[in-house]
Amino acid sequence: MDIQKLVRPNIRSLSAYEAKEIPCLVKLDANESPYGFKKSLKAAVPVETNRYPDPEAKALKKVISKYVGVKPDCILQGNGSDELIYYLITTFGGPVLYPVPTFSMYGIITQALGEKQIEIPLDKEFDLNMKSISGAIRREKPKLIFLSSPNNPTGNCFSSDRILEIIDLTSSLVTRHSSPSLVVVDEAYQPFSSRKGFLPLLKDYKNLLIMRTLSKIGLAGLRVGFLIADREIIGEVNKVRLPFNLNSLSQAIAIEALKDKKILQAHIHTIVSEREKLFNEMEKISGIKPYPSEANFILFKVNDPDRVYKSLLRKGVLVRNMKGVVDGCLRVTIGTPEENKIFLNILKKGIKSTRQENK
Amino acid sequence: MDIQKLVRPNIRSLSAYEAKEIPCLVKLDANESPYGFKKSLKAAVPVETNRYPDPEAKALKKVISKYVGVKPDCILQGNGSDELIYYLITTFGGPVLYPVPTFSMYGIITQALGEKQIEIPLDKEFDLNMKSISGAIRREKPKLIFLSSPNNPTGNCFSSDRILEIIDLTSSLVTRHSSPSLVVVDEAYQPFSSRKGFLPLLKDYKNLLIMRTLSKIGLAGLRVGFLIADREIIGEVNKVRLPFNLNSLSQAIAIEALKDKKILQAHIHTIVSEREKLFNEMEKISGIKPYPSEANFILFKVNDPDRVYKSLLRKGVLVRNMKGVVDGCLRVTIGTPEENKIFLNILKKGIKSTRQENK
Repeated sequence: MDIQKLVRPNIRSLSAYEAKEIPCLVKLDANESPYGFKKSLKAAVPVETNRYPDPEAKALKKVISKYVGVKPDCILQGNGSDELIYYLITTFGGPVLYPVPTFSMYGIITQALGEKQIEIPLDKEFDLNMKSISGAIRREKPKLIFLSSPNNPTGNCFSSDRILEIIDLTSSLVTRHSSPSLVVVDEAYQPFSSRKGFLPLLKDYKNLLIMRTLSKIGLAGLRVGFLIADREIIGEVNKVRLPFNLNSLSQAIAIEALKDKKILQAHIHTIVSEREKLFNEMEKISGIKPYPSEANFILFKVNDPDRVYKSLLRKGVLVRNMKGVVDGCLRVTIGTPEENKIFLNILKKGIKSTRQENK
Repeated sequence: MDIQKLVRPNIRSLSAYEAKEIPCLVKLDANESPYGFKKSLKAAVPVETNRYPDPEAKALKKVISKYVGVKPDCILQGNGSDELIYYLITTFGGPVLYPVPTFSMYGIITQALGEKQIEIPLDKEFDLNMKSISGAIRREKPKLIFLSSPNNPTGNCFSSDRILEIIDLTSSLVTRHSSPSLVVVDEAYQPFSSRKGFLPLLKDYKNLLIMRTLSKIGLAGLRVGFLIADREIIGEVNKVRLPFNLNSLSQAIAIEALKDKKILQAHIHTIVSEREKLFNEMEKISGIKPYPSEANFILFKVNDPDRVYKSLLRKGVLVRNMKGVVDGCLRVTIGTPEENKIFLNILKKGIKSTRQENK
């Protein structure tokens, strides 16, 4: 029996997400928070494992509603933002447009669901290339546009003006040349940004959707993402949501963790101030170019990225090699002050020895 | 902006899964186990909430591998079986064939993904109607066939001979009139069955896939399902799996719970013996026809199901009204011995009063 003949063609050419586990002492590769929530784990204990989770995640949505200041019926819970991307494309179909480089799951899920991918390269400042994007919108009439801002892996926010221009261009009010699209602003890294997010604009634009996640603020293990949008849109996407997509334990622990806004804010504050420190130190190292970041990581250019990556790993520090995504670059997640110091010291030595070896 | 115009047509006609929360004292509506795993919840405490879960769920797959006696690379982990159905249809597409009545998610997910549904009514004994099924296979060439055995909501196992005939008919070895299909035997309720499951046949049939879940044996809140199949099939479905689909807490707790096979077996044993007792008692009640069950629930016919449903609920006992699925029937999940007694007593009184009122 030839399994390949049974597999849909778009899946045949897809690769499984590669998630090698690389042993290390200091893990700065996955944009996780260095700070967990040990205490809130106790919230799991009253959970009845034998009962199905609350399919509507009512208590969690209430807490999220307070946290972001949006009504519960404008919120849809996901098993991570990944699942929400899946559901959005299932509901509205393609083509799906996004700039590159960006979060890889937009493209992977679009391909998995057999929809057309439209990838528009960012400009030299890692900002949105409006000429290409507006041309592609008119030509290809995408159903969905994903904009990660702050963008992973570049770290910058896209210009608000440009995002607004895209929202305007794709809202139904505009010229007969364009077609309506939904614009999903993925604010996974917004908590670390000094810029205003797009939540206040939701009431003005029906075709604006916002994604948020708890993964970057200390709860990656729980898999809780949420979509915020017009309640009619939420209602449609909710139709394709699996009824029990969010397990009981994650619901219980997320509720406890979100209640303690002070701790959350303190962790975010530390990470942001560490990012600034680290950026300043990295700027001083010759042979390295860090890019300004509004997220919990820093992308940096380095002469011999493979060698520097390996020299860091040899000392137990794991960062992300962006080969094939942003060539010549590595990405480091902001860790604890101690972890960042270790990273910086090894980086300095690594660069030095690379330079000497290159002589 | 007209959102409906943006939604795919197959979604427009889909309804969201209705999951009303009905207050009750004795919850016998959702085929959950009455026995949870309080102790294993402590396994969640060492979990680092800030780190992403193991995307490969290696440790869990190892434990599942031992539990079912299948190699880890023939196992795919899902956020419940629901998610595995989603992934199977995403990978192989439709048409999707299944008998009815059966587990509702086969149809819902097929529609959500825009694939063709082929529904074949069961025969009068709730067994597979081979003439209709083989005809539909030849005519429609389904890519996937879902067979829930024991079947929800009827409770019976389909004849092994008939399942085997379908597997044979759809394996590539057969006549030129048929086309290969994958046959997914959903063994969610197999732990409660006296019949042999299909695991031993996996090595003989490449187009046989088996689904299992931890939801019926005390861990519904965790959302852990798994697919067991040829490793090539697992590899293809794994391509569309979201990398972090199984959160860290569910992984940790499932591992602990599965380690203690004795407790699991004891709970299952109690439920099976309670089912037999309850069945015998229900058979004695005139005006009720319970159907023999190999699962953790009993489907029963009753003269005035709506009234009996309400009379049970008035006393705090929640069962499932199967209106529109198996008309004239209610479905009761096996609870603890105490819960079953309460159910039985109220049922007897309810039937009596219904009979009197009908006079």
